[in-house]
Amino acid sequence: MDINSFKYLKNIKSPKDIKNLGFDELYVLAAEIRQVLIDTVSHTGGHLASNLGVVELTLAIHKMFNSPRDRIVWDVGHQAYTQKLITGRLDKFDTLRQKDGISGFCHPNESEHDTFYSGHSGTSISSAYGIAQSNLIKKNNNYTVAVIGDGSLTGGLVYEALNNAGRSNTNLIVILNDNEMSISPNVGSVAKYLARIRSKKRYVRMKAKLERALDKIPVVGHKMASQIFRLKTNIKNMMYESTIFEKMGFRYMGPVDGHNIEMLCEALDTAKSVGVPVLLHVNTVKGKGYSYAEKDPSHFHGISNFDAETGEFVSKDNTFCGEFGKLMCKMAKEDKRITLITAAMSLGTGLSSFAEEFPERFFDVGIAEEHAVTFASGLSKGGMLPVFAVYSTFLQRCYDEIIHDGALQDQKMVLAVDRAGFVGDDGETHNGLYDVAFLQSIPKVTVYSPATYDEMKVDFGNAFYRDTDVVAVRYPRGGELDIPEDYKPSYRSFDIYGDKDAETVIVTYGRLFGQAAKAVKLLGEKGIPAKVLKLNRIKPIDSEAVDEAMKSKRIYFCEEGVRSGGIGEKLAATLLQKGYKGAYKLNAVEDCFVKQAKVNELIEQFGFDSESIAEAVVEMMN
Amino acid sequence: MDINSFKYLKNIKSPKDIKNLGFDELYVLAAEIRQVLIDTVSHTGGHLASNLGVVELTLAIHKMFNSPRDRIVWDVGHQAYTQKLITGRLDKFDTLRQKDGISGFCHPNESEHDTFYSGHSGTSISSAYGIAQSNLIKKNNNYTVAVIGDGSLTGGLVYEALNNAGRSNTNLIVILNDNEMSISPNVGSVAKYLARIRSKKRYVRMKAKLERALDKIPVVGHKMASQIFRLKTNIKNMMYESTIFEKMGFRYMGPVDGHNIEMLCEALDTAKSVGVPVLLHVNTVKGKGYSYAEKDPSHFHGISNFDAETGEFVSKDNTFCGEFGKLMCKMAKEDKRITLITAAMSLGTGLSSFAEEFPERFFDVGIAEEHAVTFASGLSKGGMLPVFAVYSTFLQRCYDEIIHDGALQDQKMVLAVDRAGFVGDDGETHNGLYDVAFLQSIPKVTVYSPATYDEMKVDFGNAFYRDTDVVAVRYPRGGELDIPEDYKPSYRSFDIYGDKDAETVIVTYGRLFGQAAKAVKLLGEKGIPAKVLKLNRIKPIDSEAVDEAMKSKRIYFCEEGVRSGGIGEKLAATLLQKGYKGAYKLNAVEDCFVKQAKVNELIEQFGFDSESIAEAVVEMMN
Repeated sequence: MDINSFKYLKNIKSPKDIKNLGFDELYVLAAEIRQVLIDTVSHTGGHLASNLGVVELTLAIHKMFNSPRDRIVWDVGHQAYTQKLITGRLDKFDTLRQKDGISGFCHPNESEHDTFYSGHSGTSISSAYGIAQSNLIKKNNNYTVAVIGDGSLTGGLVYEALNNAGRSNTNLIVILNDNEMSISPNVGSVAKYLARIRSKKRYVRMKAKLERALDKIPVVGHKMASQIFRLKTNIKNMMYESTIFEKMGFRYMGPVDGHNIEMLCEALDTAKSVGVPVLLHVNTVKGKGYSYAEKDPSHFHGISNFDAETGEFVSKDNTFCGEFGKLMCKMAKEDKRITLITAAMSLGTGLSSFAEEFPERFFDVGIAEEHAVTFASGLSKGGMLPVFAVYSTFLQRCYDEIIHDGALQDQKMVLAVDRAGFVGDDGETHNGLYDVAFLQSIPKVTVYSPATYDEMKVDFGNAFYRDTDVVAVRYPRGGELDIPEDYKPSYRSFDIYGDKDAETVIVTYGRLFGQAAKAVKLLGEKGIPAKVLKLNRIKPIDSEAVDEAMKSKRIYFCEEGVRSGGIGEKLAATLLQKGYKGAYKLNAVEDCFVKQAKVNELIEQFGFDSESIAEAVVEMMN
Repeated sequence: MDINSFKYLKNIKSPKDIKNLGFDELYVLAAEIRQVLIDTVSHTGGHLASNLGVVELTLAIHKMFNSPRDRIVWDVGHQAYTQKLITGRLDKFDTLRQKDGISGFCHPNESEHDTFYSGHSGTSISSAYGIAQSNLIKKNNNYTVAVIGDGSLTGGLVYEALNNAGRSNTNLIVILNDNEMSISPNVGSVAKYLARIRSKKRYVRMKAKLERALDKIPVVGHKMASQIFRLKTNIKNMMYESTIFEKMGFRYMGPVDGHNIEMLCEALDTAKSVGVPVLLHVNTVKGKGYSYAEKDPSHFHGISNFDAETGEFVSKDNTFCGEFGKLMCKMAKEDKRITLITAAMSLGTGLSSFAEEFPERFFDVGIAEEHAVTFASGLSKGGMLPVFAVYSTFLQRCYDEIIHDGALQDQKMVLAVDRAGFVGDDGETHNGLYDVAFLQSIPKVTVYSPATYDEMKVDFGNAFYRDTDVVAVRYPRGGELDIPEDYKPSYRSFDIYGDKDAETVIVTYGRLFGQAAKAVKLLGEKGIPAKVLKLNRIKPIDSEAVDEAMKSKRIYFCEEGVRSGGIGEKLAATLLQKGYKGAYKLNAVEDCFVKQAKVNELIEQFGFDSESIAEAVVEMMN
């Protein structure tokens, strides 16, 4: 791909540069942008389908609004690649999601046009409404635009925001980017409701007639076009029952073809004139312009690199996620009580097969982690054995529910916490570094952090049939890492690896076990006897594991998670209270957000690799 | 009040006992129940108005369903006093909210009729839907009934549940208990929308005509009554635009007079026959039957004891909450950027005056803590200085948003965390014991825990004008406690109180400072020199404070919060890593939920009172 061969894109340095382009030119620009998106993401990985779907929409928004005076807030922020390309980041676009490169999400540090740094779903209307209220207080007339996908509508935060913002006097424009599926095919009543708006036959027939009639009205200038658009919308609204959004106090407009830049610009122009919050419903095709992605948008949602010609992915090795999915199928055959819940991540959490095999015991609740946990509480009360499979970073959404509807209820609930620890390319918002700390704070919660598939299987067995209350099993993205061949797991709550009589102990859990084990070997080569105290169950810590630690002269604790409130601090407090007099050093992620990089790069960056561990231990001895 | 003077209530031991009572008898029973409610709550404190509002509804539900085979799930669970009275808890009802007495909320340990233990808003539909799905899997025909107030409808969890449950084939019946105000007068679009359903003039006129017509149809037996009710509902639905609930996939019925037991029973009977999720809209009057509470239900929501004759409350001393409200008014006069947000708790968080004085900078967002934080993020981006005032226990709801829309965004946001620490009578669900641990885990968050009003004022000054990012100031329910007269605060991040050269240090923060200071005096009387290291800023801990601790021979840390992930563990880890060789003992709330009792009872129970502290220190010396 030669950027210089592009007619328009290479000259676009800021949104101002697109304002004077005609619609025909914008379509050429859109085609150029699509080529860059497909080419780049095939090398870097990233969110392809969603970005291909909003090329025209992004151009229309930046043509009609003056960012950053008017603020554009992209929900989730992973569909802002086009915005990146037209705001001075074309040159760096090939560093997408790489270490020190540009983020796969909106990022204010990169550009004044990226309003918030986001990566979790459903925040845009709330934060945009905050800006809109600020404008009202400051008495200016700036616009605030939130762009949100239909998938995000399944989340409660969006509803709280609509309820609060509706009927306000703000210049808030919410663009509903409706691509009929978010990450997974959309679930729930609102999805069905949107489908009804889209597909209503009477509407389609009427619309055809109406459009023929309206087409005959000569469009003289911009203002006339807006009026016609408003007319069309009004007629449409009369044809229907009024929409759910109107009941929430928004002026509803649409649906508009999201790949028709003229129509989009007309609609946005009308929306600007309303003076109360508007919801503009836009239909887009996810993966638009790339046939493989259009056909299978789920697979092209958040992806690794792939072959741009064939649309094929580099084959994946076994992963914790895949093993989890197989395990659940196996266990569910034997135990009819096992029920699986996902929050719009059935593919991501490895549950596609389970969903097919046990449809009546599989629940995709939408992007609704809070409801997922409270719903699980009900299933448990009803005699089921509920498992909520969720990424660590999204589990943050339901902290209160884990306390209130989980641990407090004296009943079983299992959390399968995927992508625990560093996640890598997705950056600050997606790393799973908090789950250990926040789960630790909750009474009666048991937490496992296996290092191998077999340990994970045993842990789920314990979770189902031995432990009580809320039990979390957390495992990293990807597969087993550097497990030494001579590791003989006990499948109990902790293991000792290395020289059992050594006075130097490396304590760790989960994925870092492989690095700690290699460090023991490196130390051995230097004549320093050492062992790993590998925790499998990290809450509660086994008192025998504490006794093991007490016997040592020096302890180096490696924790792939936040230091504050983590297991390293917990163990230190326990040891100190018991009168431990040896040396103790804790290395964990300390009071910072972890930027994007490959997982192995992050492991090195934080000194969690075997060589850094060995060095740190040697340093402790001096 | 003599229970034996009641004709019916004394004989009701279980819901079965009301099934054979006629409607006339049920109304007498309702009057008896009201008398018990008013009399008891005037002595014990509790939720009066909401319970007075649902007496007839509770009787109707238990007449029409077979609990516990059919499950009744009360949202929040503070309006279940009537259920308690008819399920064998009349004798113990005067122990309401007392230590070892019956809970002010539903509590499964008390009765099989209390389905969940709850206290946070908006969970009922999610958990009831879980039970309903279990029934479907188990192929039985049991009903699940969720009763939820209109105030809870402002919360996103409810919407997630409606979206997920709508259009399912479950026997789920959601009763919307619409009393036109929840805790505070209701806010947001949905509230206005409900008001519209209630008040539509055309409906009222039509209804009058219709009811006259329908009244002429002879009601022969039960079945006929149901059919008439269904007919009425259908006609009503046709008269209106269809409701928001129908768009969410529920069958809508209502509104029904929630104090008319016959009508309620008819409606419930119809609801049982539908076979898909039903939303039954019921109108009730909060405080029904007690004139003082009907007139001012906000004040009678969650209350202390009062005079049953006059409706007057025991006068309140100064409180942190009150001082906070005054401070915000003062600071907002001088700084036009200061904006206050509450999640339906303007009275509870001391903001009534602020709301009156600065209406354009005051936002009641409904019971929507998640949105509150993300909205604050927008206000901050718009140049405001947002403060979210919230109880510690409800702050749990927005852990993810504090990370994602707060700390990550490089902008200021202030959390005013009220009721931090033990809260007392409300029990397990309301204690503020987690905020320190979960806020600690978040990068870039600063946390203050003042012990006096003056310290709180300084802390807010720092929060507004010195610190960056997210800053939390947390303070207890009630007022200053046992602050020694000779305490000379430095208004810096920590203070030393007592014998500066003492080798024994009691470390603590917040409310427990008073107890620790008294313990120092007690120890002094025994000839044991001691001092208090009083932390004011608990995150980050000042390195000079750590140095102070390092100098000591023994440290006793008292923490009115969870041990796991708290400041006591954090300090221990820091000291151990620095090579501290002295004794360290940490006393905190360890892996349990704290049951209801007075705050001073809890302080003693957990050994946080001055005498227990002094004893523990003496023990450390042996």
